[in-house]
Amino acid sequence: MERNLFSLRELEINEINSLLNRAMAFKNGEVSHFPDRIVGNLFFEPSTRTHQSFIMAEKKMGMQNMDLFPEGSSLKKGESLYDTAKTYEAIGADALVIRSKEDKYYEALRGKLSIPVLNGGDGSGDHPTQSLLDLLTIREEFGSFEGLKVLIAGDISHSRVAHSNMEVMERLGMKVYQSAPEIFQEKKRTYHDMDEIIGEMDIVMMLRVQHERHEVKSVVDCESYNRDYGMNEKRISLMKPSAILMHPAPVNRGWEVTDEVVECEKSRIMRQMRNGVYVRMAVLERALAEGNS
Amino acid sequence: MERNLFSLRELEINEINSLLNRAMAFKNGEVSHFPDRIVGNLFFEPSTRTHQSFIMAEKKMGMQNMDLFPEGSSLKKGESLYDTAKTYEAIGADALVIRSKEDKYYEALRGKLSIPVLNGGDGSGDHPTQSLLDLLTIREEFGSFEGLKVLIAGDISHSRVAHSNMEVMERLGMKVYQSAPEIFQEKKRTYHDMDEIIGEMDIVMMLRVQHERHEVKSVVDCESYNRDYGMNEKRISLMKPSAILMHPAPVNRGWEVTDEVVECEKSRIMRQMRNGVYVRMAVLERALAEGNS
Amino acid sequence: MERNLFSLRELEINEINSLLNRAMAFKNGEVSHFPDRIVGNLFFEPSTRTHQSFIMAEKKMGMQNMDLFPEGSSLKKGESLYDTAKTYEAIGADALVIRSKEDKYYEALRGKLSIPVLNGGDGSGDHPTQSLLDLLTIREEFGSFEGLKVLIAGDISHSRVAHSNMEVMERLGMKVYQSAPEIFQEKKRTYHDMDEIIGEMDIVMMLRVQHERHEVKSVVDCESYNRDYGMNEKRISLMKPSAILMHPAPVNRGWEVTDEVVECEKSRIMRQMRNGVYVRMAVLERALAEGNS
Repeated sequence: MERNLFSLRELEINEINSLLNRAMAFKNGEVSHFPDRIVGNLFFEPSTRTHQSFIMAEKKMGMQNMDLFPEGSSLKKGESLYDTAKTYEAIGADALVIRSKEDKYYEALRGKLSIPVLNGGDGSGDHPTQSLLDLLTIREEFGSFEGLKVLIAGDISHSRVAHSNMEVMERLGMKVYQSAPEIFQEKKRTYHDMDEIIGEMDIVMMLRVQHERHEVKSVVDCESYNRDYGMNEKRISLMKPSAILMHPAPVNRGWEVTDEVVECEKSRIMRQMRNGVYVRMAVLERALAEGNS
Repeated sequence: MERNLFSLRELEINEINSLLNRAMAFKNGEVSHFPDRIVGNLFFEPSTRTHQSFIMAEKKMGMQNMDLFPEGSSLKKGESLYDTAKTYEAIGADALVIRSKEDKYYEALRGKLSIPVLNGGDGSGDHPTQSLLDLLTIREEFGSFEGLKVLIAGDISHSRVAHSNMEVMERLGMKVYQSAPEIFQEKKRTYHDMDEIIGEMDIVMMLRVQHERHEVKSVVDCESYNRDYGMNEKRISLMKPSAILMHPAPVNRGWEVTDEVVECEKSRIMRQMRNGVYVRMAVLERALAEGNS
Repeated sequence: MERNLFSLRELEINEINSLLNRAMAFKNGEVSHFPDRIVGNLFFEPSTRTHQSFIMAEKKMGMQNMDLFPEGSSLKKGESLYDTAKTYEAIGADALVIRSKEDKYYEALRGKLSIPVLNGGDGSGDHPTQSLLDLLTIREEFGSFEGLKVLIAGDISHSRVAHSNMEVMERLGMKVYQSAPEIFQEKKRTYHDMDEIIGEMDIVMMLRVQHERHEVKSVVDCESYNRDYGMNEKRISLMKPSAILMHPAPVNRGWEVTDEVVECEKSRIMRQMRNGVYVRMAVLERALAEGNS
């Protein structure tokens, strides 16, 4: 059985369901301990949520963690991701969690390490544990995926969350719609006016405007963006009674979601973060369980 | 019972005494274990002493810690302190220790979190665990507070230590005197010439010149500052035999305290740091003890 | 018995052999646990390998670690290394591991601390645990040191590895040769043409070009440097069948060692990193064992 987790594209539907089942079991109190296992968390790009959530998952499973912070590391001496990963392998890490701003950084590692690598986000590419926590939150809410309608809206072109989610959601039988300002659209997709379709959606998944990756601020202000493409009390009121609002966080309050609705009744944003710990426990278990090699 | 610790102003005298009693019990070897409890240490401003001292307290109590370093976090993406705190709550932290350069940052959190927050220093406002360690050091030396005379001297206007201490010391029956160069004086207080009153003091508490918050270096040099407002062998010789020297550290050696007296017989600076671990154990116990909710 | 480890120059041959024996015992599975002992790792200069390797050693011995990262510390307030070390002592650390860019920083600490200090590298001076892991790798390969011929080649003048190794290798009966471009030569030594002597060597130890300490890039390019002074497939083919290639890492691939030979059959670079954990366990045990005080 494969022990790496690079992209959900490489997982069969039944593997994804197994991971979600384990994650839900952990949420319901199941315990899976790996004492003396040491995980290297290599975050070459800043992260609070994903990094701390992995640390929490590791601690809950009795593992130890060794964390690389770019500022205090040999990256300053120009060391490559490959050499850093080999270093952690050599000194005895049992698994690695890696985030990098480089798309598909993991191809340089495939087949070269004796320990599993879990992708904590690669550039604008994939973010498989984020997808899994989104899926867990959806399944927890609706019981299954088949036939659910989801709108993914906002900064689609720069979002690894969007890219990770679209493919797997369609494989799971969901119907995926996109909405985005022109500057954030990718050519191959069809885009909808948010107000025209929001009333039919089961899930509205807003994306973070990735200000650190572009200069949208120079062409549009916060109020206009939110009015035309964002979530606010007016659009919440257009949603079905059973529909939910999701967002990977951190939220740019005011931009893609206004203050008033971040923690509203329809919002599952806090629950998504909570579920993130359980899916990370599931992927760590998959990576380190006996017999997986 | 309140589980947050924002400012000592919000604690009754008997609560303060209870915390000091517990801290002294820990110093005398008492054990209080909280296995599986995870504390998030969120230091938005650099700190060695307070941060490491909290970590030490957590380790001594069998807790685990999850630390946020500003450089490697989503603060770089503009996330607010509130959202960062909510993230730690969502992923399962049992308590938070927070330092921020913003005065009263904790007002944005009051009543909004299900987990307790311990203030590790807010701007030029409060620093309650520093006050508690100062009080523990004084009580350990003199047995009680009533009637003790303390001189607080130096960079009063920028010092959270000064602000935290003055109010609580007066409530505890101590007599507080101030001495400061004009540029560091606050209007509402009375200031004394150090040399005139130092002989009557039981405690001389020097403050750190907060060079990172102002440009005093451009108007006065180190030697003049120390000669006029600092502690040195000459002033040590003016103190009562039973009197002690305190300083919150880190010391700007040469400025507020000369090299020769930092570790002199009257100095309690190292003991203050040592006592810091025990008072932090006491406030962590108060925050996490069963029945406190 | 001395518990500090500042430089191997201060250790007798029998002490070095004892440390290597313990390191090999740890590699063979021996366990030595120090529960409740807390080690402060103070890395004032960036490091991945040495820092993470010490952390791994501490975790394998059941110790806890408290790490100082320059970016989030009071160093920003101008605190000295001495005062930072005294702080860790005061709050209860049982030992310190320190790296600093200052040569012989440890002289400021000698005799001033009640807890042992292990040198994790000082400026261009010493790096005793790196030397020990080099020695362990050599002894593991050849069984003993007497009469072995080693070539140390490259950026000798800026290398603490070179400085640490030369003296102790000669004391252990090895014959040490140097090879370096003129800009990296130190006056007192004799230098050889690499191609003339490489065929007689048992060990070729390449040094990292310390780009962060000089501007060699402005006078020579990567290809010329490697061709004239570096390791590559051609030079590997000139080595004795039993000879090995070493490098302290991180490797500047292309400069001192080409990509093709970093992980070649003769390379012991990965094994050096692995052995680093075991020698650090040995020096931690020496520092903290009962009876050592």
